[in-house]
Amino acid sequence: MTERKQIPDPTLLRMCRYLRILERYSEPTISSAAIAEAAGVNAAQVRKDLSFFGEFGQPGVGYHTKELLASLKRMMGLDEELKVIVVGAGALGSALINYPGFENRGFRIVAVFDNNPAKIGHRLRGYEIMPFDRLKETVADLNVDIGIIAVPRVSAQEVADAMIAAGITGIVNFAPVTLKVPDDVVVRGVDLTLQLETLAYYLQD
Amino acid sequence: MTERKQIPDPTLLRMCRYLRILERYSEPTISSAAIAEAAGVNAAQVRKDLSFFGEFGQPGVGYHTKELLASLKRMMGLDEELKVIVVGAGALGSALINYPGFENRGFRIVAVFDNNPAKIGHRLRGYEIMPFDRLKETVADLNVDIGIIAVPRVSAQEVADAMIAAGITGIVNFAPVTLKVPDDVVVRGVDLTLQLETLAYYLQD
Repeated sequence: MTERKQIPDPTLLRMCRYLRILERYSEPTISSAAIAEAAGVNAAQVRKDLSFFGEFGQPGVGYHTKELLASLKRMMGLDEELKVIVVGAGALGSALINYPGFENRGFRIVAVFDNNPAKIGHRLRGYEIMPFDRLKETVADLNVDIGIIAVPRVSAQEVADAMIAAGITGIVNFAPVTLKVPDDVVVRGVDLTLQLETLAYYLQD
Repeated sequence: MTERKQIPDPTLLRMCRYLRILERYSEPTISSAAIAEAAGVNAAQVRKDLSFFGEFGQPGVGYHTKELLASLKRMMGLDEELKVIVVGAGALGSALINYPGFENRGFRIVAVFDNNPAKIGHRLRGYEIMPFDRLKETVADLNVDIGIIAVPRVSAQEVADAMIAAGITGIVNFAPVTLKVPDDVVVRGVDLTLQLETLAYYLQD
């Protein structure tokens, strides 16, 4: 992994939103105000976020929609397909494999793993479920970029360790636990209950 | 909804992590350093986050684990059960209904809705799937607090509008789209691909 300019996570997340807006926008040019309105932020925020990636747009004209889209995708590393494995073939793994967003956005699931002998060898939405102990060779054979952890909390660290030992440096973790990983591995946690919990704060009488 | 002290979202998210750490901690007292290490942040951050909620702990002693846990739960609005509905009985809805984290953390799913006649009336993991047009009366009857949107992107705004019309002020949206809602409604988006996209930035050669 090469050194990357450190961009704040909230900026990266907003950039992903902007990409979606640009993809659906049919006009040849778009203003920061239009992006901002669709994203639910203000225009100054949009301009500041885009400035992390360089100089775009012209005063009075706005941005060329397709050029901006192509530039951002390239700079976000989203102009090439990324190969993904999913570990955990339960309900959550099944939902993830089925989630159209992944393929639509350039993430190709190349293998699915589980350690339950009753599941191994069976097919799940077109994927043959592979034994967890075949993870390392599969990651090497298929040049996997990203590992998704969709196992119960108690198994998440073990799965992360195996992914890292296999050479994966990008992990998306759906188990509600903080993983310990080396500095050169990037983990993004998606905790399905955290967002409900932050809501609770605002729902108090 | 009453006015709440505005706490930054990243702080709220970290507070939820601290709660988990406290719940699993077996010693009677805990230091900010111990919380920080388990949460993967620094101790100053922990102390700053906790200061949003008041004065806790004693120098040289740390925090009384159970007291801090109870105080934080109360202040986060997590000391009472919250009632949740899920709209969308597809793979994702099914995974969410099955997700043990919800019940474990005080969120009780009280009803599941879909608009597909082939699904209505069938049972999904113990829940009878109800027709979408019964949402309003059900929300009123059962005093629902939170609505979870687990439908495709094209239907998400319509579902949000129906939830809001039914009186729901807290929404967790799993569809990859920014919802338009009134100011008194709080939406938390959980986009399953966003985190993969932010990873891509760091995985570039």
